[in-house]
Amino acid sequence: MKSKRRSINNLISRPFQKQPKIGKAPGSVIYLGKRRGEKFRVSLMHYNEAEITEEPLEKVEAFVLSPTSRGVNWFNIKGLSNTEEVETLGKSFGLSALTLEDIVNTDQRPKMDHLDDHLFVVVKMIYPGDVNQFHIEHVAIVLLRDTVLLFQEVEEDVFEGVRERIRSSYGRIRNRKADYLLFALLDAIVDQYFIVMELMGNKIEQLEEKVYEKPNADLIHEIQALKKEVLELRKHIRPVKELVNQLIHIENSLIAEDTRPFLRDILDHCNEIQDNIDLYREMSVSLMEIYMSNMSNKMNEVMKVLTIMASIFIPLTFIAGIYGMNFQYMPELHERYAYPMVLGVMALMVIVMLIYFKRKDWL
Amino acid sequence: MKSKRRSINNLISRPFQKQPKIGKAPGSVIYLGKRRGEKFRVSLMHYNEAEITEEPLEKVEAFVLSPTSRGVNWFNIKGLSNTEEVETLGKSFGLSALTLEDIVNTDQRPKMDHLDDHLFVVVKMIYPGDVNQFHIEHVAIVLLRDTVLLFQEVEEDVFEGVRERIRSSYGRIRNRKADYLLFALLDAIVDQYFIVMELMGNKIEQLEEKVYEKPNADLIHEIQALKKEVLELRKHIRPVKELVNQLIHIENSLIAEDTRPFLRDILDHCNEIQDNIDLYREMSVSLMEIYMSNMSNKMNEVMKVLTIMASIFIPLTFIAGIYGMNFQYMPELHERYAYPMVLGVMALMVIVMLIYFKRKDWL
Amino acid sequence: MKSKRRSINNLISRPFQKQPKIGKAPGSVIYLGKRRGEKFRVSLMHYNEAEITEEPLEKVEAFVLSPTSRGVNWFNIKGLSNTEEVETLGKSFGLSALTLEDIVNTDQRPKMDHLDDHLFVVVKMIYPGDVNQFHIEHVAIVLLRDTVLLFQEVEEDVFEGVRERIRSSYGRIRNRKADYLLFALLDAIVDQYFIVMELMGNKIEQLEEKVYEKPNADLIHEIQALKKEVLELRKHIRPVKELVNQLIHIENSLIAEDTRPFLRDILDHCNEIQDNIDLYREMSVSLMEIYMSNMSNKMNEVMKVLTIMASIFIPLTFIAGIYGMNFQYMPELHERYAYPMVLGVMALMVIVMLIYFKRKDWL
Amino acid sequence: MKSKRRSINNLISRPFQKQPKIGKAPGSVIYLGKRRGEKFRVSLMHYNEAEITEEPLEKVEAFVLSPTSRGVNWFNIKGLSNTEEVETLGKSFGLSALTLEDIVNTDQRPKMDHLDDHLFVVVKMIYPGDVNQFHIEHVAIVLLRDTVLLFQEVEEDVFEGVRERIRSSYGRIRNRKADYLLFALLDAIVDQYFIVMELMGNKIEQLEEKVYEKPNADLIHEIQALKKEVLELRKHIRPVKELVNQLIHIENSLIAEDTRPFLRDILDHCNEIQDNIDLYREMSVSLMEIYMSNMSNKMNEVMKVLTIMASIFIPLTFIAGIYGMNFQYMPELHERYAYPMVLGVMALMVIVMLIYFKRKDWL
Amino acid sequence: MKSKRRSINNLISRPFQKQPKIGKAPGSVIYLGKRRGEKFRVSLMHYNEAEITEEPLEKVEAFVLSPTSRGVNWFNIKGLSNTEEVETLGKSFGLSALTLEDIVNTDQRPKMDHLDDHLFVVVKMIYPGDVNQFHIEHVAIVLLRDTVLLFQEVEEDVFEGVRERIRSSYGRIRNRKADYLLFALLDAIVDQYFIVMELMGNKIEQLEEKVYEKPNADLIHEIQALKKEVLELRKHIRPVKELVNQLIHIENSLIAEDTRPFLRDILDHCNEIQDNIDLYREMSVSLMEIYMSNMSNKMNEVMKVLTIMASIFIPLTFIAGIYGMNFQYMPELHERYAYPMVLGVMALMVIVMLIYFKRKDWL
Repeated sequence: MKSKRRSINNLISRPFQKQPKIGKAPGSVIYLGKRRGEKFRVSLMHYNEAEITEEPLEKVEAFVLSPTSRGVNWFNIKGLSNTEEVETLGKSFGLSALTLEDIVNTDQRPKMDHLDDHLFVVVKMIYPGDVNQFHIEHVAIVLLRDTVLLFQEVEEDVFEGVRERIRSSYGRIRNRKADYLLFALLDAIVDQYFIVMELMGNKIEQLEEKVYEKPNADLIHEIQALKKEVLELRKHIRPVKELVNQLIHIENSLIAEDTRPFLRDILDHCNEIQDNIDLYREMSVSLMEIYMSNMSNKMNEVMKVLTIMASIFIPLTFIAGIYGMNFQYMPELHERYAYPMVLGVMALMVIVMLIYFKRKDWL
Repeated sequence: MKSKRRSINNLISRPFQKQPKIGKAPGSVIYLGKRRGEKFRVSLMHYNEAEITEEPLEKVEAFVLSPTSRGVNWFNIKGLSNTEEVETLGKSFGLSALTLEDIVNTDQRPKMDHLDDHLFVVVKMIYPGDVNQFHIEHVAIVLLRDTVLLFQEVEEDVFEGVRERIRSSYGRIRNRKADYLLFALLDAIVDQYFIVMELMGNKIEQLEEKVYEKPNADLIHEIQALKKEVLELRKHIRPVKELVNQLIHIENSLIAEDTRPFLRDILDHCNEIQDNIDLYREMSVSLMEIYMSNMSNKMNEVMKVLTIMASIFIPLTFIAGIYGMNFQYMPELHERYAYPMVLGVMALMVIVMLIYFKRKDWL
Repeated sequence: MKSKRRSINNLISRPFQKQPKIGKAPGSVIYLGKRRGEKFRVSLMHYNEAEITEEPLEKVEAFVLSPTSRGVNWFNIKGLSNTEEVETLGKSFGLSALTLEDIVNTDQRPKMDHLDDHLFVVVKMIYPGDVNQFHIEHVAIVLLRDTVLLFQEVEEDVFEGVRERIRSSYGRIRNRKADYLLFALLDAIVDQYFIVMELMGNKIEQLEEKVYEKPNADLIHEIQALKKEVLELRKHIRPVKELVNQLIHIENSLIAEDTRPFLRDILDHCNEIQDNIDLYREMSVSLMEIYMSNMSNKMNEVMKVLTIMASIFIPLTFIAGIYGMNFQYMPELHERYAYPMVLGVMALMVIVMLIYFKRKDWL
Repeated sequence: MKSKRRSINNLISRPFQKQPKIGKAPGSVIYLGKRRGEKFRVSLMHYNEAEITEEPLEKVEAFVLSPTSRGVNWFNIKGLSNTEEVETLGKSFGLSALTLEDIVNTDQRPKMDHLDDHLFVVVKMIYPGDVNQFHIEHVAIVLLRDTVLLFQEVEEDVFEGVRERIRSSYGRIRNRKADYLLFALLDAIVDQYFIVMELMGNKIEQLEEKVYEKPNADLIHEIQALKKEVLELRKHIRPVKELVNQLIHIENSLIAEDTRPFLRDILDHCNEIQDNIDLYREMSVSLMEIYMSNMSNKMNEVMKVLTIMASIFIPLTFIAGIYGMNFQYMPELHERYAYPMVLGVMALMVIVMLIYFKRKDWL
Repeated sequence: MKSKRRSINNLISRPFQKQPKIGKAPGSVIYLGKRRGEKFRVSLMHYNEAEITEEPLEKVEAFVLSPTSRGVNWFNIKGLSNTEEVETLGKSFGLSALTLEDIVNTDQRPKMDHLDDHLFVVVKMIYPGDVNQFHIEHVAIVLLRDTVLLFQEVEEDVFEGVRERIRSSYGRIRNRKADYLLFALLDAIVDQYFIVMELMGNKIEQLEEKVYEKPNADLIHEIQALKKEVLELRKHIRPVKELVNQLIHIENSLIAEDTRPFLRDILDHCNEIQDNIDLYREMSVSLMEIYMSNMSNKMNEVMKVLTIMASIFIPLTFIAGIYGMNFQYMPELHERYAYPMVLGVMALMVIVMLIYFKRKDWL
């Protein structure tokens, strides 16, 4: 039973994890996640229309100081628990302390910050795992001129499709600037939200089936767990719409005018996802309603059985009791056909009762 | 029982169908609908005040390159699963990749896009089918200068009235530009929404009748199915109001000033439909309330029958039990009129009970 | 039972009635109401500070062409089913096809249209009828320079007070322009809303009394009917607030600056009515709550009676059963005072039980 | 029981009282309240830093025509049912007919009107009366240059503190203009709202205590009465926040710049009161929830008693019944220790049952 | 039981405490809190990049008059019940009477006031105490040029971390102005909100566990107490978001441009906390739902036991009753194997019943 429940704590940012930060100055770069073992790795994908290079990086600084070629630089940084390395790398790109703090703060709500020479985006990468679960991973993206920094906690990600599109020579992405890469990354993340929505939809459908077919007390756990999952998804996805909207309307040359229609496309998707989440919430309310009304129906059924049994047999027992009395003067007792007559009367009473209950639709 | 339920999946955009698109570049023209067999057909209606020509088209390009006559060109394109043809046609009119993607994306939420030289509108055509069902079809409309492109998945549509008005020489539409045709098409779609509203209203009324007259456990399925249908309609119709509002306030010479009052008329209709949908939602909540209170009433009735039967006969049986005891010294047993007296007492008890229950309004 | 229910269809604009319009061009003047028999009548009241003339009109055009005297012209047009006459009259005043369509469209939601040389207002006249019902009538008002056109479906109306104030030489109205007449008409309509509110308030109060005093299953019908009536009123009254607000803030010389405080007064009234409607909705929710909790209380009471009867007599019957057993060796049976002792024990048990139930507050 | 209920009609503005006004011209000065017997009295308090005079007034006009001294004039007018006197006085100060109408309209919702040379405020004075009730009195305040007109229905008011502060030579109020007096009056009214809030809080607390300790069917009346009281308070208090906000932001030299911080202070208080009212509404919902769940608990308890009694004694009665049968060949009947053995078995069954129910936590 | 309940009065500002203020002029400096015994203490922390001095102050005025050194002055004033001292100190810094009133008004809702030469902020310091409780303390902060006045009721506070950061020579705070100190203080307060959120989260989780594992009637107290705590937190925390937002957008040179990103960081935290509070409210609703459905399940279980026992044994008792009748002519009674046959029939009936109940899933 326990395994079916989803701890409420998944839903709540865990502030005690923040306790190392309480009392620290803001801008302290402190990792709050649970992926402490992950190695720090940086890989660079550099591309323009003509060429593309991919390499794991040893020294970031070296590269940054010699921007030898024209094109887009995509730094993919993994293993955020290594805060010192993240801080060094971030500072070499001129990121502020507050930005660095949010990059490693895995509890950070999705948001967009607009700074002088860079845009900073935090979103959650949500994708299906095994057995009806989904993973939620913290992702931070920094957009600089010609450069995108992508920070992840873990190795696994949802960006393989973007990498493939860059590697293949056709496709729009190679002819575009870094802002288009930012869009492509966000688009890949939001596309996964659809997959997760589908997963949820199937879950709700299965649960609905169960609630209709064989309702039992365990289902309330599942319905409530579902409700929490929907709330959890909403918590992570809802702010994304807002941040995409900000990206579209920002006055900043980092986002080219002809990238905005693509961002508007993501906004469309966000609207659709929000419609779905709202729908899921209404569905979980409906499930509760159906469950409660089914419980009430079952109660009705139990009571009907009791009432029918009692109403038929209690009067009969009373009649039998009458003739079980030991009065000296009970003339019926000595009649020849009294016994079968009483049995006949009893049978008649049963028939009348059954007709009555039939009429009431209780049978 | 199953057939009465409406799958929740009708309510949710089906993202796994999108999986062919996951990882693809945005702007990929991929058909997501279920009408793969439909043939690709284009027909052109060209009209001005003086003349009108209707013809199925073999080569769209030919026509586009030689706009020999003044007036409005209405291209009606059917069979969106033929994405290549759609793409070719769209590009010959200068449509962007994102627009083309949305034209064939049958999951696209209703919306309006405002581009440099054209307006792009996606709406859902909803019209009644057989047996209390309604069809929902994806429609995309592009408004260019003097030209309207109307994209549909299927042959059937709700625009026959518009065609008739164009063919008949009277009526305002022949003297007007393409923006008025766009209005006429939207108006025809929104008019059908009213028909669907009426259908829903009748359904709710019938269901209300049933819930009052003979409530049973199956009704909860029907009520919940109704609720889902209302949610589904709301999902498709609600964004229409917003997009019409955008059309009214857009600053674009494609929409003439004297067409805006007509659009405002559609907005009025959208407001009315939204009022109705809100009402339907409240009605479905009411139905649930009535159902639950009826269930509770039935339970009360069952309990009353049980309580009356038990309260009358259990004490009587006890009295009979008393005189069924085998004590040696029970003087009453030997009284001459003890038996009829006991029977009399019992009858009296029954009468007192009945009066009591009558007073309590339980009979 | 049926007569107590209010059909949901009163709540919903009936689109099938619109079917004559489906496929017709917008601006088609088609009557949708149910008062087809009403004769077409036009009467004119012309007044200024000095004089007043009232006359039924034969030919509207004649008058319009010769505006011989200074003052306000109030045309009162009745019998909207005569669409041709309405159309002729409307066109002679320069009304657009869309305005004419809305004048005879009795399903039109309350609204205000602001056109070049006239203002167009649709509202619903709601006033009490017989036996706790109220009438809802469609009214359209057009404000032109020095002229007000008032369109009604039926003879009966709520404007007699306005006419009296015009006829009597004192009162502000004779010194004012047509915009003040528009205000006076709206004010008369909104005043009636208060009467209807009072009617509803009394209904709710009576229903509340019933739900408290003698709740029964029929009340749920009445509560739900009340809820629908509240929804119906809200549907017609809510948009009025918005349209009055538009009238106040419109930039149009047709509405003089010194008429606006009077319109603000109507807005005040609308706010108050909306407060009341919101209150009524909360009251109908409360009624449902009280009803359900009363049902639950009655159930409790039924169960208590059953439990008390069963708990007292089942154990007693068991004891009687013990001594009804036919064992050969039951020493008690032969005791001289066994029978009265057993009866004594039984009486004691009853007393203990009664005290127990008394303590539990079940008696 | 009846006395505990609060009539819904307290909640609703009573329009039939308005019937004298229906058909009358707007601006008709008609008293709608219930305090017809009150005498018309006017008193004037005139003060500046240096001096203060207080006097009952016979002729207002005289005074108004000779404003001999510098300072603030506070006219306190009581007894609004004397509409003629109110009208005469009002006109001598140049008040418009609409303002005069609202002054005596005791159903008027709290509001602020901004006219050329005066501000007009309607609020409700709410203060505790005896036995857990509170009074609601209509108050109208007009702010003119150097003059405040305060209209009340009754003698009693909440402004004694303000008068005291004026009389005592210290305190800010004597050095200030009329706008500060307006503020002081509003402040005194809003201060009373806090007292009323406290009263309500205590009521809710007592009711909560009762619902927890000894829930019974009467409590539903009290909870619903409480809910209505909260709704009534909200109705009168909520618009005050809005009107104070308008006073703060009004562009009018009648309100000096350095008075606005004080008005902002009132706004703060209004926010706090609104927080409380919202809280009270949630509390009344909670009370209903607790009540319903307590009812359900009591039902459970009743059912448990019934089930325990029936489950223990019905099987025992059956066993007794077995050995009460009159078969000729029942060997047990003749056993020497059959009777005590059967009794032993019965005792064992009771023990097993009790353990079972104990395990189920039903005892 | 009582101890588990949280008095509603914690939730409501206690206006009777305000009664000393009723009738007093606004700006009267009256302490409303419960910490009357606290001594009045002022300590000053003066710092700049180079140096830092900390000292308890005897005479504030002395210091204020001789601002000998460059840097930030942080006055920490404790013991607000000493209103005279607070007033003297406040006036020496030029604070207005209204500000002083709010400083000692411990019921003041969180807010921000923007005055000519200072900003005034009221917030609540909420931090965990013993045994699942939390403290709520009133804090007022005044930001002047180069000076921050921090007013607290009690000795204990949440600012030790800020003091430490100032004392340690590294960290940003020493190089910054007074506005950064204001930010640091707010940040320290909001950080504690996270701790409290965590505490609440754990409570909800434990309660959820209990509601699932062993629901009983006491839990409703705990759920309702939790709901009140959530409402109480919301009341104190919600306005903070608004005031931080005002601080960010204020046009005042007291807040430097480069401090605003830090304030935006707090705003982020406030958003997150608000998300959590909303979540907690939904959780408490869910808890109620689970509780009610568990109650309903338990009822079902009780009824099933009753129905099974009654349905099995009542018919059997009837059969036993039949053969307990004393008719003279009952041939079965004299059959040799009648008794075991009847017992066999009874056993068969029990088996059939058990199978039936098994099929119905009642066992």
